[in-house]
Amino acid sequence: MFNDYMVKLGSKRSAIRELHEFGNRRAKVSGQDGVFDFSIGNPSVPIPAAVKDALVKLTSQSDSVAVHSYTSSQGSEEAREAISRGISKRFGKYVPSDLIYMTCGASAALAISINALCEPDDEFILCAPYFPEYTVYIRTAGGKEATVPFLENFDIDLVALEAAITPRTKAVIVNSPNNPSGKIYSLDLLERLANILSRKSAEFGKPIFIIADEPYRELVYSDKEVPYVMNVYPHSLVCYSYSKALSLPGERIGYIAICPDAANARELYSAVLGAGRALGYVCAPSLFQKMLAMCESEKAPIESYRTNCQLLYDGLTRIGFECVPPEGAFYLFIKAPNGDSEDMSDRAKEFGLLIVPGDDFAAKGYCRVAYCVDKDVIIRSLPLFEKLKESYEK
Amino acid sequence: MFNDYMVKLGSKRSAIRELHEFGNRRAKVSGQDGVFDFSIGNPSVPIPAAVKDALVKLTSQSDSVAVHSYTSSQGSEEAREAISRGISKRFGKYVPSDLIYMTCGASAALAISINALCEPDDEFILCAPYFPEYTVYIRTAGGKEATVPFLENFDIDLVALEAAITPRTKAVIVNSPNNPSGKIYSLDLLERLANILSRKSAEFGKPIFIIADEPYRELVYSDKEVPYVMNVYPHSLVCYSYSKALSLPGERIGYIAICPDAANARELYSAVLGAGRALGYVCAPSLFQKMLAMCESEKAPIESYRTNCQLLYDGLTRIGFECVPPEGAFYLFIKAPNGDSEDMSDRAKEFGLLIVPGDDFAAKGYCRVAYCVDKDVIIRSLPLFEKLKESYEK
Repeated sequence: MFNDYMVKLGSKRSAIRELHEFGNRRAKVSGQDGVFDFSIGNPSVPIPAAVKDALVKLTSQSDSVAVHSYTSSQGSEEAREAISRGISKRFGKYVPSDLIYMTCGASAALAISINALCEPDDEFILCAPYFPEYTVYIRTAGGKEATVPFLENFDIDLVALEAAITPRTKAVIVNSPNNPSGKIYSLDLLERLANILSRKSAEFGKPIFIIADEPYRELVYSDKEVPYVMNVYPHSLVCYSYSKALSLPGERIGYIAICPDAANARELYSAVLGAGRALGYVCAPSLFQKMLAMCESEKAPIESYRTNCQLLYDGLTRIGFECVPPEGAFYLFIKAPNGDSEDMSDRAKEFGLLIVPGDDFAAKGYCRVAYCVDKDVIIRSLPLFEKLKESYEK
Repeated sequence: MFNDYMVKLGSKRSAIRELHEFGNRRAKVSGQDGVFDFSIGNPSVPIPAAVKDALVKLTSQSDSVAVHSYTSSQGSEEAREAISRGISKRFGKYVPSDLIYMTCGASAALAISINALCEPDDEFILCAPYFPEYTVYIRTAGGKEATVPFLENFDIDLVALEAAITPRTKAVIVNSPNNPSGKIYSLDLLERLANILSRKSAEFGKPIFIIADEPYRELVYSDKEVPYVMNVYPHSLVCYSYSKALSLPGERIGYIAICPDAANARELYSAVLGAGRALGYVCAPSLFQKMLAMCESEKAPIESYRTNCQLLYDGLTRIGFECVPPEGAFYLFIKAPNGDSEDMSDRAKEFGLLIVPGDDFAAKGYCRVAYCVDKDVIIRSLPLFEKLKESYEK
């Protein structure tokens, strides 16, 4: 009676949300102290003071019409100019404001970009481990995904990637710092990826695009730089979100920036405008666009994430779990001792530890631990992780 | 190279935006005084004081994480409960909060509802005159539209509507108070529509839905009631927006409410959740959801719209234009004296009057005048409308 695909999509709860809600139920029964919710990537640090000041100032301003009116569908000129200046300053790349499109967060940016690019039966290459919603956006747009496995250190397997490219490949989605592995792809890796795509684009006589999904760009704990894709490869677009950078994930504010060197960049921008309309977007929330015009370069404090990361990594490896040290984002991706991630998530639940099996991220055998929690939660959880480890030794 | 439909959609400027931007250019050259922009439906009244207070309070609150975090994808329980109570109180209809889904405004609500309902090649009936974006959402979802003409008084032509129903008809979209005509459909009209749909649903052995698009519900200037569709017909859903009700159109906050009496209402709700995910929506802006939990029943002051409506209607009819007195929304739909609405819009431009041809609304021969402007603009515009009228008499 209804659209079957949508019914299925809405009926199947994500493993993450399922766990989170299990935690809420358990907390009601046995108290919050017995639940260690590492399931959800919800930023836990305050917004920057300047952002707060800007929001208070804007909401208390006398002319509410000026603050809360529609902006143009591509977003307010002021916000897009601020973003353009920010990109120039940080990455030395000039992206004109009329190749920037404001969105309701990174998910909208991805859905819109994929719908703009996708011709029927186009293929999009996903580099495991990856955010499961990518496949939803690709299938909704009428495309197909091809998944490329990862190397032991969570780098992209470029040999497999090259082999996965076909004449129907439209784009590769790259997410760095990576959810769920915490990996930052190096400049060298990206340059090698760019070489492959340039060669294949030439071979097929049409560009293969890179979509860089960058909600975690600001959450970096190592000295490693997060390279800017437009400086490495022309046919690229960046999907950005302020959810983590400014710690306001519920407010849905982000953007798409199209590299001015991309083939037919102006036409792609038109396709982005069209896809935004088609999916029911009118404009990104205007209050938060106005805030950005004042605060685009602000950053939420990430010291507590860094502390948590270190504490948890040290604790878990001391206990004996295997884990690549994360470089960014706020996830730790640990190996299930017996290789069965769903079993590990189930065992962990018994101890009140909520960790997400990697299967939906195309990474069987791993579990994701989101450490955007209170430090105290981590400290109190470590003895339970120890018990979890012991459960494998019985 | 890109999705052709999206490129076309993004390249074709809407007649409304085209006019509005012509106005901005003209204002830069010859001053704001020579431009009378009746093109855009951007609310021009302040937000209610209680809404402003709530926004200031929420943004200045110390725990920013509590305010700006993700809500669940269906929306915060508090906001949905407030809406459920509001619907009960105003319309005597109980819609449980778990049949309410928070959206980024009415456009998102419509796009999501249509994608949730639409199976391949389903047909959606549109009642002229109608908001042009309906066709975009229907085509994107893989459906087709069938347009039903209007009667002279802007009521739905029910004979034509019944004739347009086929076994593939999934839903009828009803917009009252109507954009662009200002018409409010009476209880009698809706009951006759419901009778037809009940009969046809029985005939085809499957429900035909009504999607009630209600962004203008609160903007009513006559004594006429705006009937609540769920009290008239079971297989119905309401797409609502606070854009006009609270005068914050840029903030993108609204909802879908599914009638609990609809066939398979729970499954439809799942389809709505799925369609929201598929189109890239994560949650409606959380700050504005929290505001709603406090202020759902507030209303923006509409006295100035009422005054404008009267002034403009009296002025235009005195000049000799033909026009049905509007009952709600903030549009006046006037007849082109020579039946050519594009020509009328062009002639009006010469006098600095920006009015939108009705062609895109499936109403050739009419022009839309949006009177959500300063009263002064209306007063100063009337002599120019008089010149416009005279231009037909030469």
